[in-house]
Amino acid sequence: MRHNFGAGPCILPQEVFKQASQAVLDFKDGLSILEISHRTPEFEAVVEEAVKLVKELLNVPEGYSVLFLQGGASLQFAMVPMNLLNEGQTASYLETGVWANKAIKEVKNFGTANVVASSKDANFTYIPKDYSIPEDSTYFHFTSNNTIYGTELMTVPVTKVPVVCDMSSDILSRVIDVSQYDLIYAGSQKNIGPAGSTVVIIKDSILGKTTNKIPSMLDYKQHIDGGSMYNTPPVFAIYVAMLNLRWLKSKGGVAEIEKENIAKAKALYTEIDRNPLFKGTCAVEDRSRMNICFVMENPELEKPFLKFAEENGMEGIKGHRSVGGFRASVYNALPITSVHALVELMQEFAEKHQK
Amino acid sequence: MRHNFGAGPCILPQEVFKQASQAVLDFKDGLSILEISHRTPEFEAVVEEAVKLVKELLNVPEGYSVLFLQGGASLQFAMVPMNLLNEGQTASYLETGVWANKAIKEVKNFGTANVVASSKDANFTYIPKDYSIPEDSTYFHFTSNNTIYGTELMTVPVTKVPVVCDMSSDILSRVIDVSQYDLIYAGSQKNIGPAGSTVVIIKDSILGKTTNKIPSMLDYKQHIDGGSMYNTPPVFAIYVAMLNLRWLKSKGGVAEIEKENIAKAKALYTEIDRNPLFKGTCAVEDRSRMNICFVMENPELEKPFLKFAEENGMEGIKGHRSVGGFRASVYNALPITSVHALVELMQEFAEKHQK
Repeated sequence: MRHNFGAGPCILPQEVFKQASQAVLDFKDGLSILEISHRTPEFEAVVEEAVKLVKELLNVPEGYSVLFLQGGASLQFAMVPMNLLNEGQTASYLETGVWANKAIKEVKNFGTANVVASSKDANFTYIPKDYSIPEDSTYFHFTSNNTIYGTELMTVPVTKVPVVCDMSSDILSRVIDVSQYDLIYAGSQKNIGPAGSTVVIIKDSILGKTTNKIPSMLDYKQHIDGGSMYNTPPVFAIYVAMLNLRWLKSKGGVAEIEKENIAKAKALYTEIDRNPLFKGTCAVEDRSRMNICFVMENPELEKPFLKFAEENGMEGIKGHRSVGGFRASVYNALPITSVHALVELMQEFAEKHQK
Repeated sequence: MRHNFGAGPCILPQEVFKQASQAVLDFKDGLSILEISHRTPEFEAVVEEAVKLVKELLNVPEGYSVLFLQGGASLQFAMVPMNLLNEGQTASYLETGVWANKAIKEVKNFGTANVVASSKDANFTYIPKDYSIPEDSTYFHFTSNNTIYGTELMTVPVTKVPVVCDMSSDILSRVIDVSQYDLIYAGSQKNIGPAGSTVVIIKDSILGKTTNKIPSMLDYKQHIDGGSMYNTPPVFAIYVAMLNLRWLKSKGGVAEIEKENIAKAKALYTEIDRNPLFKGTCAVEDRSRMNICFVMENPELEKPFLKFAEENGMEGIKGHRSVGGFRASVYNALPITSVHALVELMQEFAEKHQK
């Protein structure tokens, strides 16, 4: 039995794998999902359903468009200022990790980035709290979940300026109020689907205010007009995302999965706090529900524990090199039984090494 | 029995579908290809093999890089001038269809496009021949195969300026001399693999000459440095492309598939020219080996023939709306038996309707 705690691309539901595997052999009349035209009514229905499911699951209000694009969050780092920021204007950014930092770096080609606060001083182990967002910012950007460090910002900072959020690693894991955001983007490869597509949820009214020259493929407006089919979309990636969104709906939707996510995170953090061999790496109040980072009191035990865990079916729990130790990513599709299995291994290991 | 003549995304080998389907269930130790990290040694080996196979199959010389990117040819329309053309400079383009035209349109954000020749006057049914490419062009761009109209330019126009080619729909279908090109790009969804990745073959020495501000994700140099893993790549799309490239190698490579492609095209064009009910739409000398366009002498018979063909297993043979009639796309993976089956239906239909 394998337990996939990988940080992304990550585990998806087993039934999604089965359906996807079948569609690679036969999606329609004996034709593979990999060989059908994106202009067939059958695939157009897939895109339509995927968009509808995102809207339904996140309760997206009127006036917003949902897009399936390519290029990951990394391309959004550039598309956001390209579509929203004029030369001479300033956008405010909250620096909560490497990904936020990469987003900040891409602003310079279009305007100015104003970093309102940073937790770089403590290796991004907390979310900065006391800062103000200048009211003349064109927009405010933050990363809701920081995969590498295991911090998460679950509330939207109070501001009058438009809010842009990189929600790559916690979208669909908890109930959000989309009306508090003007633009949400997320690489799909955590809770949406496999790597290869990117979801953008955008308030239509924030567009059309820049004088930048925007290449067609980087223009949100073009993709909205094209219904995510401005050009050939990543057919299979969208198809599997649709299957995964269907699965989430069948589980009871975001509110239900949030309960499970709370239970999974609680089970693991409780063990980290209880077990004298382990300790968490982040400020307790900023702990992520998606990526749970921890180290060992005695760093010399980390290698043996990693070996022990891997030998017992744990996959992808090595921490990111910039943090060290361990990272258990507990995305939507990871069953709570996997968390229990990890907790048991931590206890077993402690019994052996605690003398 | 279905015969998939679709223009793209298109047929791939049945054994590739089988292998891909299996990997969705179990790629490594029970984990799906859809849930493994792109940083695992197993997936890094996939990217490495895919790049190596492109180099081997196309005999790519030293000094060129091969990239797997996202965004299709449409994103390349912008990335090419962004990376190569300074403001005030001019690039020359050959206008052979809608796709060439889209590429031309994206130049305006960066410099000037000089259209050296166009076959728009005759709905792009031929490839312009008598034109000259100004020697002060920063580069010359052409589309080697025009999917919609069924024309193909198999030789590289003689010029001293760097040559950029959109080879989306005929790459790997025939032997080419890569050293005659400075940049080749191709959306994968014809002869490379499924939709969702884009191959770029680039002469390293043409980079670094522009003063444009290039976002990281749109900078060829960044992708070269990152080994196509600057950010999370489209894992599954690259994996299936690798399987398909392996298949092509096992078939004897590009020279062998070219022989088959010649035979397939010959079989169908011969019937089009012979059968009094049908006629080709393009200049004979510019006929594409990949997309074979034809209409009927009596347009009233087109609907009945389409119905007859579809009832007998023919998929995707309806012509593009801007040309009408029929289009049989006969990419690498389409077996010659499918062409024979179509030819038989054309003959059978003619026998019934020729009185």
